[in-house]
Amino acid sequence: MDSTRAFVKNVKRVVVKVGTAVVTRDDGRLAIGRVGSIFEQLEELNSQAYEVILVSSGAVGAGRQRLKYRRLVNSSFADLQKPQLELDGKACAAVGQNGLMAIYDNLFSQLDVTSSQLLVTDNDFRNPEFRVQLSQTVNSLLALRSIPIFNENDAISTRRAPYEDSSGIFWDNDSLAALLAQELQADLLILLSDVEGLYSGPPSDPHSKLIHTYIKEKHQGVTFGDKSRVGRGGMNAKVKAAVTAAHAGTPVVIASGFAADNIRKVLHGERIGTLFHKDADSWIQLTEVGAHELAVAARECSRRLQGLPSGDRRKILLDMADSLEANESLIKVENDTDVDVAQRAGYDESLVSRLTLKPGKIAALAKSIRTLADMEEPIGRILKRTELADGLILEKTSCPLGVLLIVFESRPDALVQIASLAIRTGNGLLLKGGKEAKRSNAILHKLITAAIPDTVGEKLIGLVTSREEIPDLLKLDDVIDLVIPRGSNKLVSQIKNSTKIPVLGHADGICHVYVDKSADMDMAKQIVLDAKIDYPAACNAMETLLVHQDLSTNGGLQVLVEELQHEGVTLYGGPSASSLLQIAVAHSFHHEYNSRVCTIEIVQDVHAAIDHIHKHGSSHTDCIVTEDTEVAEYFLRQVDSAAVFHNASTRFCDGARFGLGAEVGISTSRIHARGPVGVEGMLTTRWILRGTGQVVDGDKGVIYTHKNLSPEL
Amino acid sequence: MDSTRAFVKNVKRVVVKVGTAVVTRDDGRLAIGRVGSIFEQLEELNSQAYEVILVSSGAVGAGRQRLKYRRLVNSSFADLQKPQLELDGKACAAVGQNGLMAIYDNLFSQLDVTSSQLLVTDNDFRNPEFRVQLSQTVNSLLALRSIPIFNENDAISTRRAPYEDSSGIFWDNDSLAALLAQELQADLLILLSDVEGLYSGPPSDPHSKLIHTYIKEKHQGVTFGDKSRVGRGGMNAKVKAAVTAAHAGTPVVIASGFAADNIRKVLHGERIGTLFHKDADSWIQLTEVGAHELAVAARECSRRLQGLPSGDRRKILLDMADSLEANESLIKVENDTDVDVAQRAGYDESLVSRLTLKPGKIAALAKSIRTLADMEEPIGRILKRTELADGLILEKTSCPLGVLLIVFESRPDALVQIASLAIRTGNGLLLKGGKEAKRSNAILHKLITAAIPDTVGEKLIGLVTSREEIPDLLKLDDVIDLVIPRGSNKLVSQIKNSTKIPVLGHADGICHVYVDKSADMDMAKQIVLDAKIDYPAACNAMETLLVHQDLSTNGGLQVLVEELQHEGVTLYGGPSASSLLQIAVAHSFHHEYNSRVCTIEIVQDVHAAIDHIHKHGSSHTDCIVTEDTEVAEYFLRQVDSAAVFHNASTRFCDGARFGLGAEVGISTSRIHARGPVGVEGMLTTRWILRGTGQVVDGDKGVIYTHKNLSPEL
Repeated sequence: MDSTRAFVKNVKRVVVKVGTAVVTRDDGRLAIGRVGSIFEQLEELNSQAYEVILVSSGAVGAGRQRLKYRRLVNSSFADLQKPQLELDGKACAAVGQNGLMAIYDNLFSQLDVTSSQLLVTDNDFRNPEFRVQLSQTVNSLLALRSIPIFNENDAISTRRAPYEDSSGIFWDNDSLAALLAQELQADLLILLSDVEGLYSGPPSDPHSKLIHTYIKEKHQGVTFGDKSRVGRGGMNAKVKAAVTAAHAGTPVVIASGFAADNIRKVLHGERIGTLFHKDADSWIQLTEVGAHELAVAARECSRRLQGLPSGDRRKILLDMADSLEANESLIKVENDTDVDVAQRAGYDESLVSRLTLKPGKIAALAKSIRTLADMEEPIGRILKRTELADGLILEKTSCPLGVLLIVFESRPDALVQIASLAIRTGNGLLLKGGKEAKRSNAILHKLITAAIPDTVGEKLIGLVTSREEIPDLLKLDDVIDLVIPRGSNKLVSQIKNSTKIPVLGHADGICHVYVDKSADMDMAKQIVLDAKIDYPAACNAMETLLVHQDLSTNGGLQVLVEELQHEGVTLYGGPSASSLLQIAVAHSFHHEYNSRVCTIEIVQDVHAAIDHIHKHGSSHTDCIVTEDTEVAEYFLRQVDSAAVFHNASTRFCDGARFGLGAEVGISTSRIHARGPVGVEGMLTTRWILRGTGQVVDGDKGVIYTHKNLSPEL
Repeated sequence: MDSTRAFVKNVKRVVVKVGTAVVTRDDGRLAIGRVGSIFEQLEELNSQAYEVILVSSGAVGAGRQRLKYRRLVNSSFADLQKPQLELDGKACAAVGQNGLMAIYDNLFSQLDVTSSQLLVTDNDFRNPEFRVQLSQTVNSLLALRSIPIFNENDAISTRRAPYEDSSGIFWDNDSLAALLAQELQADLLILLSDVEGLYSGPPSDPHSKLIHTYIKEKHQGVTFGDKSRVGRGGMNAKVKAAVTAAHAGTPVVIASGFAADNIRKVLHGERIGTLFHKDADSWIQLTEVGAHELAVAARECSRRLQGLPSGDRRKILLDMADSLEANESLIKVENDTDVDVAQRAGYDESLVSRLTLKPGKIAALAKSIRTLADMEEPIGRILKRTELADGLILEKTSCPLGVLLIVFESRPDALVQIASLAIRTGNGLLLKGGKEAKRSNAILHKLITAAIPDTVGEKLIGLVTSREEIPDLLKLDDVIDLVIPRGSNKLVSQIKNSTKIPVLGHADGICHVYVDKSADMDMAKQIVLDAKIDYPAACNAMETLLVHQDLSTNGGLQVLVEELQHEGVTLYGGPSASSLLQIAVAHSFHHEYNSRVCTIEIVQDVHAAIDHIHKHGSSHTDCIVTEDTEVAEYFLRQVDSAAVFHNASTRFCDGARFGLGAEVGISTSRIHARGPVGVEGMLTTRWILRGTGQVVDGDKGVIYTHKNLSPEL
């Protein structure tokens, strides 16, 4: 649930308004499919003990359609030659109301819902007694679980255009809905429209964004979203009605009536349409426009950062390290509070452990930042240098990617690692940490950004604090260059499925150890145990042990099984292993246990092992244990994974252990960066060409030499 | 339109069958929204002079719901304690039929459609007279534009379960629909279901694919898709009915009735649901299952290719080159035919020019293949070598990406270039060329794959021939590693928007030349002209000329303008330039003209030029012309584009001119490869770790040394 929509938990009485544009089609006829799905949702609410009140319009349109048809049927050919007079609105309303209500009644009956019709005019509301009585009538109807359907009694109303008059009671069905929401003390008013809600600009402009929460001081005067085909109403009227009702205390959501599930979603607190709420102005929040601004600011700061001399970037890192050490006690206070809250909330031990900044951690972080500060400048490195023609020199140089979005869970030290890597590589950064670490993240972010000079701007590193902003950020494929999720498989998959921005990471870590017939069995035992139990929750832990068939008859397999069981590892078997070892059958070979559980299977030889790995693995890290160099080299050459090991534990697959310094994550994708990703994965390249006026001129402009030059100047 | 659906162009009479699962909800009540949207589509067809016949079921369900309610209302508390007897099906049908038809009539009336009810039993069809009369009745109704609604007369039918009996006339509403389609000589039967169509496996299994066209010999016995909640029917019955009707000559589409637009889409020839057609078995086509098989085969072949010794891969390329030269006349015949057909079809000159393999082209291609064959082996190169600990050596090595999908237009020589790059880099390839080059592509593909040895397999390079297969291929993010579109902006954007596979390429090429105040004006003139007119349709041609403001007063700007106009270049201006030069205002600064048209704007200085480029450019290639080295270096450092030039034409941004050999395209994305992409962009890396039994053991297992070693062994 969107936190700004939390109020829906207490909603009981709901007024839903459907306008002409929603209930009719382009040709003026009733949009039966759309009306039907709205009615089904209302029936569902009604059966869930919500009190549902419907405000409908569309009678004039429906009547006009019907009268036109009649006139056509009754016309002579000569009649039809004459210009057609516009039909009288009152007449249309009288005819339309009839047909509309008949079909509404019929549709609701089909759903076992008793509906009731209430036609009102603004004059009625001038009478205080009417207002009391109306409220009583509606209460009685709702007590009987009947859905009251309100409509302006257009056929007898004496008001004429311009409809909005000084009486200020109501002047269209939007203001009627707002009025009823107040009179009947509704908890929520939903205005269904033919667009998604209120937009920051014309909906046809791709830069326009849907406004999720209307903030008066920010959005006043914005009335985009208006493309109402028919009727009065339109977005202007809706916003006005919504502001009035919200001010009087009834929250309002303007949402599309064209989507089959929107009423349900609004009541589930999903961020559908535009919310108007009297407290919205005081909500401190990052709106969707804010997300874009944040990303653009990070990009601008990153461009300034990369424009600095190398020494200045180094100095930022050294200042960061000093500041973290100087403020260790401050950090500790915030982190202790996070840990305390998490413990009291009953979070599991492993999360609390990841959350805790243990003694010495700040010093270790400061040390790693200083190591990073002292590494060779990664930006602007000349990777390749070619003379294309006389006086025309091409260089391929390293440069920052731009703006990275990192979504990480629990560990506040990840914030420091990633931020220091970003500064070293000249990148802007948007960080979204876990809410359990919010105080730790906030203080670390504050200390880090304080070290960034004004010439760059502290917005280089943005801290995103609420989960709802992620969908907005994931839409910004024009500003954000790479997303790195660090967390559960589910998080990674969700992000991959919901963005066009490239995602670097891995969803699964299904790592294999294959023990060949020629393995040194003592070594195999050590490696298998370490790969499984050193840290079972890690992505580089072994999930499947493949064993050469010869070991099943010479006792080798038995030794491995006993060792694993001795360490409390639960074993599941593939078809061969389960029958031989009398253990339970593994449900799937593509399963990441993340605990002291492991699948075992017996394979015919190294070829079968490789086939198994290609078929069921996740191309993360796979290992062979063998004394036969030829078999080992074949395995190393053929296995198509990010990391392939011979006689070493899969647990070595890690940025720090690989000597890359800090790591932003491990990638199993084949594009850009693969395996543990450090500084290199945060850089891209740029081609720099220096000439003296050369032109191509159909390739007759220069004589190509294509001479490789030394990258060192 | 999908080519297999071309028959819809001649469809006039359509039978649409909606089953219980479609017209009712989970609770047995009518799904009014769904029924409504189906009716709206039928009304639309009816008004477009299609002849629409509806076969409906759902009466039993609707009646059961209604009777249960009645029984509840009439029950005493004691009654309700007793076990509830199942209601009689016949009674339910009698009650339900009534209510169902009332609501159908009402809904259709609302849409100004007159519907008519026809209840039939299998017995009726035993009478030949009835069959003649039925046909006449339906013809009369259709002539009056009334929609006949058929249903089995369950209330009086004497058949009992098992319903499918030896009479073989009909036994459920699916077989009734098939029977009516034949009796009434319909041109199309649409069976609406609660799933998308027939699946190759259980729909819950992510590996199951929707079968778009049922091929008897391939799919016989497949009945997945069945999850019907209610009623008889189910996918088994639908497939049986569909096979029968299709065999008798009426094409059938099984599609979901849950999507609001499916009937319309089916009649537009879109590939919705599963098609049954009597000629389907003889259609030679790549089905969606075929697309997956093609990609998997390419991956398997690529793994064998990279397993070959380097010399063997070199030999394939040399054989390819020889074969192309030896068969030049054969290639010419096919290419001439393509060119001839294109000319007669009135394709524009530039397309015909790109399509033509000019004299000497084959020799040039063969030469470039031989150059590629002789280049240093790109696979397995050790890019980095580190000793992690004593006896534990880590290598970062180059390796193929896997399977690439290349979508290219017109130029058949691109096929040869890309295929040779793929073989050099050990990648599998799926190629989709333009249909105008189909003969040329076919012969080139044949000659190239003939050079691939059986130990690798000719499926290494798949040629995809029809456009409809692209959507299927773009779904295969589990097998295809990279998509490279080479064609129009529109093609690139479409592909980027419709796949999760990484896309390498560029949508726009908005390249700038900025002429600084200190420019050598003769040089500026040469570069500006070359950048604009050497090949205006190229992505690296200049679209916007930015000029320092000082040049607008010292005559420099005037010289550039006159030169461009002299070459027939049409000029548009930004706000400053248009008023000063009295030229038309440019509609947008982000516009790729691709012709002798160009935007000009005057900027204050190099900073303003860079801001303009960042704001309006596409990060492709941007150039500064200046004699001031300091300004030049500032520009080269700050401009955030794939290629940044000083005093050289933007037209140099090209794989061949950069000395990369053949190129697969130019990338403006920041991930993986940037600018012209040759061999390097078709490779990724793999980490190889060789140990002697080392384990991590909480990082106490080894003493890390992290010593950089020379990559050369």
